[in-house]
Amino acid sequence: MIPSLQESPLYAMANPASIAFFGASNNYGAMGTNILQSVLSLGYAGRLYPVHPKEKRVMNLPAYGDVADLPEVPDLAFIVLPTDIVIPTIEACGRKGIRRAIIVSAGFNELGEKGRALQQELLAAARRHGLRFTGPNCIGVVNPHWKLNATFLPYEGRPGFIGIASQSGSFVTQMFNYLDRFGLGFSTGFSLGNEADIDLVDGLAYLGACPHTKVIALYVESIRRGRAFIETARAVAVRKPIVAFYVGGSEEGKRACFSHTGALAGSDRLYDGIFRQSGIIRAGSIEEMFDFCYALGAAKAMGGNRLLIQTHSGGPGAAAADAAGRAGLKLPKLAGETLEKLAPYVPRTGSSANPIDLTYTKNPLDYFYSIPDILLHDQETDALLVYFLASAGMVRRALEGLGVQKEEVALHAEKIIADQCKAVASLAEKHPKPLIGFSFLTRENPFIRGLQDLGVPVLAGPERAARALGAMAAYASLRKKLL
Amino acid sequence: MIPSLQESPLYAMANPASIAFFGASNNYGAMGTNILQSVLSLGYAGRLYPVHPKEKRVMNLPAYGDVADLPEVPDLAFIVLPTDIVIPTIEACGRKGIRRAIIVSAGFNELGEKGRALQQELLAAARRHGLRFTGPNCIGVVNPHWKLNATFLPYEGRPGFIGIASQSGSFVTQMFNYLDRFGLGFSTGFSLGNEADIDLVDGLAYLGACPHTKVIALYVESIRRGRAFIETARAVAVRKPIVAFYVGGSEEGKRACFSHTGALAGSDRLYDGIFRQSGIIRAGSIEEMFDFCYALGAAKAMGGNRLLIQTHSGGPGAAAADAAGRAGLKLPKLAGETLEKLAPYVPRTGSSANPIDLTYTKNPLDYFYSIPDILLHDQETDALLVYFLASAGMVRRALEGLGVQKEEVALHAEKIIADQCKAVASLAEKHPKPLIGFSFLTRENPFIRGLQDLGVPVLAGPERAARALGAMAAYASLRKKLL
Repeated sequence: MIPSLQESPLYAMANPASIAFFGASNNYGAMGTNILQSVLSLGYAGRLYPVHPKEKRVMNLPAYGDVADLPEVPDLAFIVLPTDIVIPTIEACGRKGIRRAIIVSAGFNELGEKGRALQQELLAAARRHGLRFTGPNCIGVVNPHWKLNATFLPYEGRPGFIGIASQSGSFVTQMFNYLDRFGLGFSTGFSLGNEADIDLVDGLAYLGACPHTKVIALYVESIRRGRAFIETARAVAVRKPIVAFYVGGSEEGKRACFSHTGALAGSDRLYDGIFRQSGIIRAGSIEEMFDFCYALGAAKAMGGNRLLIQTHSGGPGAAAADAAGRAGLKLPKLAGETLEKLAPYVPRTGSSANPIDLTYTKNPLDYFYSIPDILLHDQETDALLVYFLASAGMVRRALEGLGVQKEEVALHAEKIIADQCKAVASLAEKHPKPLIGFSFLTRENPFIRGLQDLGVPVLAGPERAARALGAMAAYASLRKKLL
Repeated sequence: MIPSLQESPLYAMANPASIAFFGASNNYGAMGTNILQSVLSLGYAGRLYPVHPKEKRVMNLPAYGDVADLPEVPDLAFIVLPTDIVIPTIEACGRKGIRRAIIVSAGFNELGEKGRALQQELLAAARRHGLRFTGPNCIGVVNPHWKLNATFLPYEGRPGFIGIASQSGSFVTQMFNYLDRFGLGFSTGFSLGNEADIDLVDGLAYLGACPHTKVIALYVESIRRGRAFIETARAVAVRKPIVAFYVGGSEEGKRACFSHTGALAGSDRLYDGIFRQSGIIRAGSIEEMFDFCYALGAAKAMGGNRLLIQTHSGGPGAAAADAAGRAGLKLPKLAGETLEKLAPYVPRTGSSANPIDLTYTKNPLDYFYSIPDILLHDQETDALLVYFLASAGMVRRALEGLGVQKEEVALHAEKIIADQCKAVASLAEKHPKPLIGFSFLTRENPFIRGLQDLGVPVLAGPERAARALGAMAAYASLRKKLL
């Protein structure tokens, strides 16, 4: 069902040993030049052959006047040329023996009737040479594990575990910085464009087989091969979670999809059905898609739908409980044994109901180790959600209060925060259930950054975390059905 | 209906000329000490009288052994004492002539049966002296315009236009940093705690009259005085928008509310009805509440529900369109005259349908001025939503490409970005309709920060922006009904 990675038509797109590059020049305003700059600046280690009719050197690389003159047959042709010379270029690449291309150039199906004929012609030209391609009208490809960023935006992240196949290039490139703000990155990202040849199904199959990819994100405007999509997704979803964001379900979304990629979108009901059959979790926004991917990729798998919530603030706890209920989760009462073990840690103003609201803890490490450890041992729960309020200002203030010298406060604070992060991470490691955090703070805060960098997912706010846990429970249930 | 600000029982809480402070010491671990530190560090300019049975000085301020010894009758008593001495302290304050108190101490209604009797006793004691109070079990008050932060977390923001009355103190204090990340701040924030005396209705009335407050946020677990709440809200809502976040609607939320503040929450249906009658917009999460407040407070009022979307990326445009449709907005086609004026700016690969997808613009300033100016002039629309992709890396790269010296790139980039921000802000100023931005970038990006600091709201992502515009259209319609 899923071919091995090497058999995928996308293998050479994401892992090319050599690239023939069409459309880069020494004109810094040009899209092609921008993309080549991105390739160079991430440190791509393969061989690069700019092809240019006039320039002898492009971006300090030797350039070739004709693809026929290249000293080898590159794995991939990357094409950012005016519409009218795309087909002749594909022909020339085919004659050279090149079998894969990424076509960024636009001016095809997305323009309506006239463009459609041209796209058919493009496809026919490629087929004559057995050449497979993504696009046209796509943005490129990114595989940070291969140090390849062939898109017009600089890669601002790290190699990560989220694979994406997207019918909008923006949701690949314009997410680099976004994901980085959670300490996340892409494993590999494909922009599919008009899908004249290679499509979402191929992207899904590749990412299903990709060893760097723990979870798959799909941005969907239209599924062109329904049956193949469902079959591939079912085969992949038993191995790793798939999260899809579909925007064509409203009248306004449908019209926007049509004008974007010429896609004929279907109703929410139709797509909900397809996703359910496919074992795919549907997200309601881009933000939610990546929240779901984060939790599903970073935490242990969730076995059921019972959640414990640990907090020291009533409001965030109540908000998490309400959102968890709406996301289909159950909040069980604590088992008797758990209550007994927990009692010494719960002050008179606290509550052992679920949410477990400590209000405060005398020894901060109790909150980060002893208490969550007890809760994760509870037999009647499938996951733990912990609220993290970590004011760096409070830690500094406490240290100053203890008489620590001004200049040493930062150092001590760093050590305390690192210990707290390690305590939490050791629990996430030790227990077979997911431990998810939420906070209103971001990676600018050293505690949140510390947790995230040790692999503990900390999501932005109670509702987003609760919904991500809902997705984890939904995945457990979908997976059981598939098996 | 709404008293003047000075008549509100909350006036002295938010604008005290002098405070008697109970529960601060020189013990840096104590909650009271922490709060007093917050008061001092924001630079409160009024008179502070720590009251302490043993210490002669508290935090370098002269301390008083007994409230009776204070040299004046302070406007406010701030009480962070063990539960069992709260009532005697209130009695002593009353005898001194103090008429307002904030009671942070917990151990009352939220503990159930036993606590309830104690809370009744507390209320009776206060009433005997005509003393009004917030709490018990609250977190304090913040009024950055008065340089007052009487909460245990340092204030990490600026004086702003969002007023909040909250049945959870966390959603005041733990939002300081959150709001700051959008360049926002509170006008005044009240933590109401158990609402033994002063409640949500009083908070709403105060914020309705407060000149610094442009929009009101309410965190609600339970409304205790239904009729007064509706009447007050209706009087306020014609003057400024009110956004409420209610968490008691699910079974899980209801139980969490009960264990948090002893509140008896009602069904979603009941609360939806109350909010609708009150002219209040309901938000689905804390994040959404502040998104709505941001757009409603920072942008011009929206007259109807017709939205134009300007983008250069198809996916974010489609996501915004889909979310806008789901939020009750209409996406009209452009009027003929608008299409004509726009034509020179739309490249062959672009689209003049709505979303207006430019794909790219040769002169970047067109995207930031000429195009949105044309769209805002369109007679058939009520608001404009613009996608901002502003990679600082791209600007730098372009400048380097133009041959600008490395060391001058930063300076030039700063100037270009500032001009772009000013262009957008001048349109928001000039047109009587809202101009809202969305981006996947944050204030870490100088362009986003620049826009936000010039008063152009830039929301986090297409769906959040679209839903905020939905809230603006809903407010226009609610307000019309109220008038």
